[in-house]
Amino acid sequence: MRQLTLDDIEALAVGAWILGTGGGGSTYHALLTLRRLYAEGHRVNLMDLDDLADDDAVAVVSVMGAPLVILERLLDSTQIARAVSVMEEYIGRKFKAVMAVEIGGGNGMQPLIASAHLGIPVIDADAMGRAYPEAQMTSFAVGDLKPWPLTSVDPRGSEVIVGRTPTWKWMERVSRKVCTEFGSIASTCKAPRTGAEVRRWGIPRTTSKAIALGHAVAEANRRHADPIEAILKAESGKRLFTGKVVEVERRTTEGFLRGRAAFEGLAEDRGEKIVIDFQNEWTVVWRDNQPVASTPDLICVLDSETGEAIGTETIRYGQRITVIALPAAEVFLSPRGLEHVGPRAFGYDIDFKSVFLS
Amino acid sequence: MRQLTLDDIEALAVGAWILGTGGGGSTYHALLTLRRLYAEGHRVNLMDLDDLADDDAVAVVSVMGAPLVILERLLDSTQIARAVSVMEEYIGRKFKAVMAVEIGGGNGMQPLIASAHLGIPVIDADAMGRAYPEAQMTSFAVGDLKPWPLTSVDPRGSEVIVGRTPTWKWMERVSRKVCTEFGSIASTCKAPRTGAEVRRWGIPRTTSKAIALGHAVAEANRRHADPIEAILKAESGKRLFTGKVVEVERRTTEGFLRGRAAFEGLAEDRGEKIVIDFQNEWTVVWRDNQPVASTPDLICVLDSETGEAIGTETIRYGQRITVIALPAAEVFLSPRGLEHVGPRAFGYDIDFKSVFLS
Repeated sequence: MRQLTLDDIEALAVGAWILGTGGGGSTYHALLTLRRLYAEGHRVNLMDLDDLADDDAVAVVSVMGAPLVILERLLDSTQIARAVSVMEEYIGRKFKAVMAVEIGGGNGMQPLIASAHLGIPVIDADAMGRAYPEAQMTSFAVGDLKPWPLTSVDPRGSEVIVGRTPTWKWMERVSRKVCTEFGSIASTCKAPRTGAEVRRWGIPRTTSKAIALGHAVAEANRRHADPIEAILKAESGKRLFTGKVVEVERRTTEGFLRGRAAFEGLAEDRGEKIVIDFQNEWTVVWRDNQPVASTPDLICVLDSETGEAIGTETIRYGQRITVIALPAAEVFLSPRGLEHVGPRAFGYDIDFKSVFLS
Repeated sequence: MRQLTLDDIEALAVGAWILGTGGGGSTYHALLTLRRLYAEGHRVNLMDLDDLADDDAVAVVSVMGAPLVILERLLDSTQIARAVSVMEEYIGRKFKAVMAVEIGGGNGMQPLIASAHLGIPVIDADAMGRAYPEAQMTSFAVGDLKPWPLTSVDPRGSEVIVGRTPTWKWMERVSRKVCTEFGSIASTCKAPRTGAEVRRWGIPRTTSKAIALGHAVAEANRRHADPIEAILKAESGKRLFTGKVVEVERRTTEGFLRGRAAFEGLAEDRGEKIVIDFQNEWTVVWRDNQPVASTPDLICVLDSETGEAIGTETIRYGQRITVIALPAAEVFLSPRGLEHVGPRAFGYDIDFKSVFLS
């Protein structure tokens, strides 16, 4: 167990945003919230998943919704803690710790906000190793753990408990509709997990990984070195494309942000063109109508100058960008993992071919 | 407390369908279910609301959804009892009795089905005195009672609890979206009521009224008398129009059945034309683009021959019909009542003028 410094949290905001692969929600508001909570004297402790006892109860949290809405509609910091409290009341048990369902984006920081309000530690793990848009796209779902219950709260005081669903996809469908009616944004506490489940199926140490990644970017910028090189080195990543944004299509639909962005090459990619589709997160990179990279590989669109991530909700014409890929968590590379998060899970009739195998 | 006979239940199927004003779902499937449950030895007791103690807990049930779907998609009879059991588990308390949110249509019979499975009596009261399409259109909402919690279950095993909402309209919005995702049909247990609340705000003795109405229709048909006259006499109703169906427009949208039916006059109405709009239930009768009757007055479209009700989901070209109006429950005629169920509550820019005042 270690106490996170505000410096760690600043780094987490950068690292989690990169691992968000365009989604998970901007980390900016969460960072502002945590700066305020730290100024008020709150502190957050990070706990290793190996320190969990088998039957400890762990709350798994996220803000669900469309990233564009998440950016526009500010949340009271107590919201995410309320989702956890509603769950505690429902299951009649107190949580030992809280963890992120996805380390990517603002959702990688929501457990810290819950932790500050609830006074329980954050587990250094998540269930995606990045961000994905849907409830069944987790290592817990790949492990066939119980999808329910889920609590979902909104700023008007509404509270919904999805007590039971036959499958993870039904949990996604029902909770998504509730989220949509709340205004395409909802603070949620997912199915509670035991310590044993988190140790077996959680993706370990992704919070400290995101913090280290953020520190690496900051350090490179401080030394006037190339921050993108620092990211590729820290995460064994691969550069895919350097260019600028020439077109963005974006719509908020069914509780998601969907669309595509087109890019023209610069420097060594001059004359080339790529398109990247997204459903909250970047899903498939196309060149000449052929897929060149796809989920579950992490597709990250970064500011070429600063190395900071660019979200699908804020990307705009003219930005100078570098597209990189980072390797996916092991659990998603099995046939069963790919059923949950491979390109077919997003409606594409293509097979997954990792850029790290070519 | 009296035990209902199968004959009473047959009469209830006719009477509740008339009071359904086109909606509440056909009573036919509920009748088949209750015939089977009675054949299996189940019995249902009807309890007067005055026999409730102040703090008795009463379950308020209905099948929520679009009548066309309710007709097409058969429900296991245990579904409605499951909604009640999920509520008991959630509030940690057993119910003393069960009642209908609306006496109209199949929903006037759902409490009997729940009762047969749960072994608790049915309260002789409801919260509409007819059927209305939305959650905030109840005497409990007019009385400003607490709108939550609500449980909603589907045949696949999904269970949702709407634990809290800021208003009745938000309860309607959130629970409707869940219902829509379940396939526009859900078995629900509404906010539990105390005996004191039911006595103060329930609409008394609507189950026995519907049974008496059904008996009156059967009796008239047995004597080859005019069943419609029998209905008008039993309920102090008013004949509005006699004719035939010449056009029906119908669509299942947002968890409702919406549309309009057009009628041409016969006999003393020959040469006349009317149109009736519906949202699950008949809402406004138009003649020459002028409203001649509207909710909350009960608008009932009946088979001219048998006096049986015709639902908005089954009405079809060529049917010989008589349109009648029956008086609304007192509670809906106040300014506050009309805010909940007057024509403006259905989006019409017209004032309510009861046909019983002209």
